[in-house]
Amino acid sequence: MSDCTRPGSLFLSAPLPPGGIAIMAKFMDVHSGFVGVTPEQLVDAHEADLKIEGEEGVHFERAWLDAESGKVFCLSTGPSKEAVMRIHERTGHPTTEVYELTAEV
Amino acid sequence: MSDCTRPGSLFLSAPLPPGGIAIMAKFMDVHSGFVGVTPEQLVDAHEADLKIEGEEGVHFERAWLDAESGKVFCLSTGPSKEAVMRIHERTGHPTTEVYELTAEV
Repeated sequence: MSDCTRPGSLFLSAPLPPGGIAIMAKFMDVHSGFVGVTPEQLVDAHEADLKIEGEEGVHFERAWLDAESGKVFCLSTGPSKEAVMRIHERTGHPTTEVYELTAEV
Repeated sequence: MSDCTRPGSLFLSAPLPPGGIAIMAKFMDVHSGFVGVTPEQLVDAHEADLKIEGEEGVHFERAWLDAESGKVFCLSTGPSKEAVMRIHERTGHPTTEVYELTAEV
């Protein structure tokens, strides 16, 4: 019921070309320990990320919460895993579990 | 660059009401061990799920692959975790790591 309109490409990331033009990669990061977090708290955390993400060239597109297990998944674009990690760290919800996506359907 | 058009609701799932009308819940499931999988193989696996998902009232909306770590994340709607697991099992890529999402932004 919430289908997405999006480009059809399967290839999300590519190495930097020799000329050095930055190509955005796509990431999924996973947080643990958020048991009992409310939807409003998820919104607050996401908005904190959105406020400063531009400083690292990152954009957090979506975030999903399972409040029972305490897992949060964030989908983002950006220049590197480390850039994603720095934003999450500065906003108080650090994670080292960041996956660079090589394909999506 | 691939923003989604979607309903604004934060609340994705709800318990079945006493009257028994089925309400779809949303899930993120995680697979491990898919190191070196190609985008085409991800498409094939996703299409295999799509072919039979209706038999369980499940719909797989998206899937993301990190071929280096071997992780795959699937976003779906359906009546239960078990229904999601049964589809993945029948198509040859079982996982027990299925999270029921209580909120998204």
